[in-house]
Parts: sequence; structure tokens; C-alpha cells
Amino acid sequence: MPRRPGEFEVISSYFAPLAGGRRVDALGLKDDAASLAPRPDTEFILTADALVAGVHFFPDDPPDLIARKSLRVNLSDLAAKGATPVAYLLCLSLPEGIDAPWFEAFAAGLAADQREFAIELAGGDTTSTPGPLTIAITAIGEVETGRMLRRAGARPGDDVWVSGTIGDAALGLGILRPVGGRASAIADDDGAAYLIGRYRLPQPRVALGRALSGCTAATMDVSDGLLQDLGHIARLAGCGAIVEETEIPLSSPARARISAGTGRLDDVLAGGDDYEILRADGGAASRIS
Amino acid sequence: MPRRPGEFEVISSYFAPLAGGRRVDALGLKDDAASLAPRPDTEFILTADALVAGVHFFPDDPPDLIARKSLRVNLSDLAAKGATPVAYLLCLSLPEGIDAPWFEAFAAGLAADQREFAIELAGGDTTSTPGPLTIAITAIGEVETGRMLRRAGARPGDDVWVSGTIGDAALGLGILRPVGGRASAIADDDGAAYLIGRYRLPQPRVALGRALSGCTAATMDVSDGLLQDLGHIARLAGCGAIVEETEIPLSSPARARISAGTGRLDDVLAGGDDYEILRADGGAASRIS
Repeated sequence: MPRRPGEFEVISSYFAPLAGGRRVDALGLKDDAASLAPRPDTEFILTADALVAGVHFFPDDPPDLIARKSLRVNLSDLAAKGATPVAYLLCLSLPEGIDAPWFEAFAAGLAADQREFAIELAGGDTTSTPGPLTIAITAIGEVETGRMLRRAGARPGDDVWVSGTIGDAALGLGILRPVGGRASAIADDDGAAYLIGRYRLPQPRVALGRALSGCTAATMDVSDGLLQDLGHIARLAGCGAIVEETEIPLSSPARARISAGTGRLDDVLAGGDDYEILRADGGAASRIS
Repeated sequence: MPRRPGEFEVISSYFAPLAGGRRVDALGLKDDAASLAPRPDTEFILTADALVAGVHFFPDDPPDLIARKSLRVNLSDLAAKGATPVAYLLCLSLPEGIDAPWFEAFAAGLAADQREFAIELAGGDTTSTPGPLTIAITAIGEVETGRMLRRAGARPGDDVWVSGTIGDAALGLGILRPVGGRASAIADDDGAAYLIGRYRLPQPRVALGRALSGCTAATMDVSDGLLQDLGHIARLAGCGAIVEETEIPLSSPARARISAGTGRLDDVLAGGDDYEILRADGGAASRIS
């Protein structure tokens, strides 16, 4: 079994190069903590999500994609609140068998997304576990004071909008599952690669969320499935919601698989992992699609 | 096997009552994120630590003490930076068999420490795991701008100080280990209960850290053992450190066990889990003991 690098080696070799720089003073990850100075007239938005190998991703998924997905599910929550990403903290519980090339790829994935989303590593922790790889990330964003978007505020009669196609990730997961998650073994029929990509690498709608900040329409991201998440918005509004099957935005690969019977509409509605912004809105002026 | 309550039940029954209140708007844990407004002339201090059952605590430790220790190891990092605790986020990876009474006790432990340290729950995540219970906490503190304490800054010739006795927790762990962590089975000879208590419930030196904020002496908390942590401070100073065995502050129970040969000085020096503040300081005016 390959040697797992020690804690201090992991931190200095792979994570210290990702730490701080613009907003955060992470002290090279050589101290107990990092400092983050606020900007005038802003508040911070805080969110956290944990991902477990075998539950939220396949253990042999490419490490760079595991890293990016773990970060992006948090960035999607910030986007849904209208916040601009600033910093994140990363707690890794590591099983045996995680070796230097794995860390290298994992850190490269984080580095790519730090550039794409202008976010910095502020700290974290690495520990051993006899269980599966577990990744807990806290992400911190920033929004002008009072302009955070909220789930609450929908009213009966509102229209329901999403920022992109629904169900791609669930259908992608459905393709991966029967063959144990190894995408390389899968022929690219019906745009399988597109759907798998949507499962493995969500596209948090950060720019859209930022543009919407300050609006009062009920807003959240779709992570647990359209039906469940729309249910949260409706419940806070004290009403139900009607979803017209023909109005659900589907990608061509998703439409093709459903037509062919190789994908189910139930998975589209309840599968989750969409990471699109969901919005209930009464005014045409703030429509998002 | 007892039923584990569902995710939304856990959040609404046990964690929502802990959320927000003074500084944090946690939206009753019903949204994707929480907001935290800064105070003028302050910056935020960020730290994160993960604890794994069987690695950092015994799986059958009392749930309230597991909760409090998980929070306190983070508060100790804030204390060592001179920061006042403000908020924390909690990611829980839960194995089967965690039942309602466990959550109740765990939440009661958090509630007790939220009162004691004036800190609020800002959010988090709960997920299933086929592995051991894993608790990842991000803690956020506040300090006047520029007054964070740092590990760096020691100079050759500095005196080395600690805020309390060293080795109690390591000796307490040594008592628990041979009998599988069940403290109830242990007779209270030589102050065993005191030492076990020091292992299970650290006392983060928050008030002391706050009083020291703005000082330039090198400061950190002792979590990995006096020798290793003093090594970090010495390395940043480009020198070594001399520890006189007779000068190490020991509690009476620790001293008794070492004299009796039932505790080893090596465990005192290297065992860790002390959560005292360690400081290298050249000026008598800023001595802390």
C-alpha cells in the first residue's frame, strides 16, 4: 500500500501554496488560525457542506474533480445567497492508501477552482480515519449589507424559475452507478459524458447570484432535487407549487435518454445535484431566464 | 438497532434551537447559509478542526462531552490568537446507531458551551457515513484589527511560559486506554477522575488569550504536545528551546502518577491535548504566570 504523506508534509507541500494571498492572511498555514478583514458596508455569508466517499462521490473518482465538487457545492450555496466567494476552510479525514499523487491532483483541482472563483484557502485540518474519505468545507462569502438572498418571501401566484437544465447530474449518476463509477468504461451514447460531467463538476451560478443580490424573490440552489427544494420555498410561503412537466428545462442528452427510456423523469425531479438557482418570483422584471 | 432521526428532524429538533441570536442571522437553519456582520475596527479569525471517533475520542464517550471537546479544541485555537469566539459551523458525518437520545445529549453539550463561551451556531451539515462519527467544526472569532497573536516572533533568549499544568490529558487518556475508554470502570486513585476530565473537557484559555491580544510575544496553544508545539515556535525563531524538567508545571495527580511509576514523563511532554497557551517571551512585563 502506498505511503500516505504525513500531516505536516501534506500541509506544506500541497495546501500551503493555496493559502491566503489577497483577502485572507493564512500565515502560510503555519499558525493556529487565519485572519480575514471585512470590507466596509458588507457582511459575511457562511455555509458548510460535508461529502463522504461512497455517499456523495465514488472513491475512485478523479481527485481533482472530488476537490472541485466539494468546493463547488458550497459555492452554489453562496451563489444562492447572492454572495461573492472570499475564503474557505477544508477538513479532510483521510483513510489509508491516499498517496502523494492523489494529494497532488486534489490540490490541483482546488487551485483551478480558486482561480476560477477568486476564493482563497484560509485553513483547515487533516486527520486519519478508519472510515471513508470525508471532506468538510466551510465557505465564506461577502455581500453588501442587507442584500443577502433568502429562501423565504415567495407568495401564492409567483412564477417558478431555474437558472439552467434540471436532472442532468441525476441522469449522469444513473449512468455511473451500474458500472461502479468508472466513466472510462462507458460509451458516449446519448451525451453520457455531458451528463456525467454535470454530476461530477457542478457549475455554481456565482455571477448570476451576485447580479440578483438585493432582490426580494425567494431564492435557493437546487441540491436535493427540484421537488424537495421547491417544497422548502413553498412551505415557507404557506402554499404548494405546481410544476408543469413540459416546462422543466431539459438538456438534449437528458431529453434523449428519457425518450429512449434509459433515463427516468423521477430522477430528473428528485435526483438532485443540479446546483442551479431556483427562484419563485411574482414580477416579470426580475425573471432570470 | 435504534432508528437514526432523519436529517431535517435532526436539524429542526436539536440544532435549530442553537442557531444564531445575537451576532449571527442563521435563519433558523432553514436556509442555505447564515449572515454575520462585522463590528467596526475588528477582523475575523478563522480556524477548523475535525475529530474522528476512535482517533480523537472514544465512540462511547458521553455525547455531551464529545460535543464540548469538539467545540473547545477550536476555541483553544481562537484563544491562542487573542480572539473572542463569535460563531461556529458544524459538519457531522453520522454512522448508523446514532439515536435521538444521543442527539439530545450532544446538543445539550453544545448549548452549555455556547452559554459559557458566548458563541452561536451559524450552520453546518449532517450526512450519513459507513465510517466512524466525524465532527468537523469551523470556529470564527473576532479581534481588534491588527491585534491577532502569532506563533512567529520568538527570539533566542526568550523565556517559555504555559498557562497551566501540562500532561494531565495525556495521563488521563493513558488511564482510559487499557479499559477501552469506560471511565465508570476506573477507581479514582491518584486523581484519575481529574486527569480523565482534563482529557475529555479541555479548558480553552479564552479570557487569557483576549487579555494578551496585541502582544508581540510568540503564542500558540498546546494541542500536539509541549515538545512538538514548542518546536514550532522555536523553528520559526530559527533556534532551539531548552525545557528544564523540574520547571514543567504538573498537577498533583500528574505528579503522583509519575512518582508512582503509573504515568510517564514522555506522555506529559509529547502526549498533547493540553489546550494551554504556550508563549515565548523576552519581557518580564508580559509574563503570564
